[in-house]
Amino acid sequence: MIQNFIYNTPTRVVFGQDTIGQVGKLAKEFGATKVLLHYGSERVQKNGLMEQVRQALDAEGIGHVELGGVVPNPRLSKVYEGIELARKENVDFLIAVGGGSVVDSLKAIGYGLANEGDVWDFYDFKRKPAACLPVGVILTIAAAGSEMSNSSVITKDEGGIKRGCNNEACRAKFAIMDPNLTMTLPEYQTMSGATDIMMHTLERYLSSGGHMELTDALAEGLLRTVMQNAKILLEDPSNYEARAEVMWASSLSHNGLTGCGTDGGDWACHRLEHELGGLYDVAHGAGLAAVWGTWARYVRSNDKQGRFYKLATRVLGVSAEGTEDEVVLRGIEAMENFFRSIHMPTSLRELGVDPTEEEYKVLAHKCALSTGNNLGSIRKLHEEDMETIYRAAR
Amino acid sequence: MIQNFIYNTPTRVVFGQDTIGQVGKLAKEFGATKVLLHYGSERVQKNGLMEQVRQALDAEGIGHVELGGVVPNPRLSKVYEGIELARKENVDFLIAVGGGSVVDSLKAIGYGLANEGDVWDFYDFKRKPAACLPVGVILTIAAAGSEMSNSSVITKDEGGIKRGCNNEACRAKFAIMDPNLTMTLPEYQTMSGATDIMMHTLERYLSSGGHMELTDALAEGLLRTVMQNAKILLEDPSNYEARAEVMWASSLSHNGLTGCGTDGGDWACHRLEHELGGLYDVAHGAGLAAVWGTWARYVRSNDKQGRFYKLATRVLGVSAEGTEDEVVLRGIEAMENFFRSIHMPTSLRELGVDPTEEEYKVLAHKCALSTGNNLGSIRKLHEEDMETIYRAAR
Repeated sequence: MIQNFIYNTPTRVVFGQDTIGQVGKLAKEFGATKVLLHYGSERVQKNGLMEQVRQALDAEGIGHVELGGVVPNPRLSKVYEGIELARKENVDFLIAVGGGSVVDSLKAIGYGLANEGDVWDFYDFKRKPAACLPVGVILTIAAAGSEMSNSSVITKDEGGIKRGCNNEACRAKFAIMDPNLTMTLPEYQTMSGATDIMMHTLERYLSSGGHMELTDALAEGLLRTVMQNAKILLEDPSNYEARAEVMWASSLSHNGLTGCGTDGGDWACHRLEHELGGLYDVAHGAGLAAVWGTWARYVRSNDKQGRFYKLATRVLGVSAEGTEDEVVLRGIEAMENFFRSIHMPTSLRELGVDPTEEEYKVLAHKCALSTGNNLGSIRKLHEEDMETIYRAAR
Repeated sequence: MIQNFIYNTPTRVVFGQDTIGQVGKLAKEFGATKVLLHYGSERVQKNGLMEQVRQALDAEGIGHVELGGVVPNPRLSKVYEGIELARKENVDFLIAVGGGSVVDSLKAIGYGLANEGDVWDFYDFKRKPAACLPVGVILTIAAAGSEMSNSSVITKDEGGIKRGCNNEACRAKFAIMDPNLTMTLPEYQTMSGATDIMMHTLERYLSSGGHMELTDALAEGLLRTVMQNAKILLEDPSNYEARAEVMWASSLSHNGLTGCGTDGGDWACHRLEHELGGLYDVAHGAGLAAVWGTWARYVRSNDKQGRFYKLATRVLGVSAEGTEDEVVLRGIEAMENFFRSIHMPTSLRELGVDPTEEEYKVLAHKCALSTGNNLGSIRKLHEEDMETIYRAAR
């Protein structure tokens, strides 16, 4: 059955080589007079990117202040810092120069500026944001898809509580995407990004409530393309074409396109990973790869619509010989083999995490708390299921 | 090589059953206080759709006036009528209740209202529109993709001159798409629509200047899905799922998604058909099917990037046996066979058109005039090429 859906992708994407200089004109078109430039590591200062951005804004007479230091699993403390700075400086437009963490941190700052009260309320499911200060993106990492998505994930420093807030108000006005900016990423980050992109599609593709043949066909094409090009980047990390394929896939995987007609997705893997990211500060994509296979084996018998079978035969090239069960299991194995081939972990230990007895309980308990103890679409997971999966993923 | 691109799809799509009632709230959200409701045949009055729309607008306190009578290959005279009515009535928002012809006519009215001077100037390539009155769509025919595209095609009554204007200003604010509204379309119109959808994708897929593997994969999935579902609708025209697949494909085929990384497309078939539509008032999709095969055979030897080969093997299920030339020719034949299978014409006579000697010259001359005598991407076509293709398509 095809579910009703809303497709809302207002972000204007400017994609390709030598596009950074357009940031001034774009910001002006969307009404910016003073911009907060938000970034992560000092790499973007040293490699000249920030200077290019400053010059483009100067050329249009747009003022700017800067706040760096965003880390992976971006922290709430940095968000508060950004809100304070932007208020003091009368900023009216926000631009992220970075990857998903910087974009997510920026969106949280935007919520904080456009609404009264504590911004954490929106991540703690206490209130919904009514607005967001306008956001633009200069993307430097292909992974999270935050440049076109309605989502933002923030980690509260105390207790490592990682929470997401999905709201249409935070969709970026524009996203400048020059694949050259991703050329110098370390292999682990590139492959973790490719995994994240695949997962954004898989969470929707595998879910159980509603499907559309067209969405499936697009999702399958996207998955195959990312897998092919991740392999190319393993051998040839400065291949522009492969960087471009993966970068555009990052946006399309999470802007809503791969979810049209579905129930919105399963998202259990993502939520299980959030707790790992919150507690151990692992790379998001790698964390997803580490739990996916275990999760898949745990939920697959509830997959009454043959989604795992479709994935195996239409994306992973698994032969249809044998029973349906055998095909599905070979499919899950093929996916794990793919992760291994791009040097991604398929277990917690490979991820570099070995939880204590107590920590398994903490992970499951936090995950249950943040999901109302009712997680997923293929199979509903409760606290005991979560603990079982974390343990089996060891 | 992957070309730089801009991806701009601001239209909020509300897709699915029982969504018409949302038009009032949507119009209000986008600032409407008085709306022009534009439509084609009186069918939408008789079947209650217009009444539903009126009630939804009334519920939000939004005023409305109506102008029907838009015909396929929508006429400039109707556009002038709409501009005059909307001015007199102080309309500030435009809503199309219909298919591509109604949407295109509405966009032209929007240009006329938001700019000084004669609106035909924008279609006659004399000036570019600086703005467009905001537009919303309630779609009743899956075909043109105008509900998400930046394009509008109008026919000047005198001389049957059919011209298109592409501009970002005319992209719809919202599009309500309920597949149920397309259930009662006659077979010929449904299949003509499916052909048009495929052609919007093929014009880009086959072009010669730049390609992206991801875009190809999405285009191939879209083409296969439309072909499968057109066949289903031949047997079972009230199949909701198939109607939904084709309807969503109509938007995705022409909103820019299938062109990312390309040179923008070839568009020779479309421009050749425009002259047929202008002179003989044929259904657009059927006109495209009637010339496609002849055009393909005429240009294929210039296809240095193997696009026709890719189409044959990846979309049309043609075996790779034999020489490349043989595969390509079998592919073109397979496409024509598909058109025949959905009762579409593959020649002008099957289209119901048999031009006189003089008319062949007129068609080619008008097409050359409107394209600067330099048409297409795979192979540049000039007036003599156009005449040759029209004649060979007989």
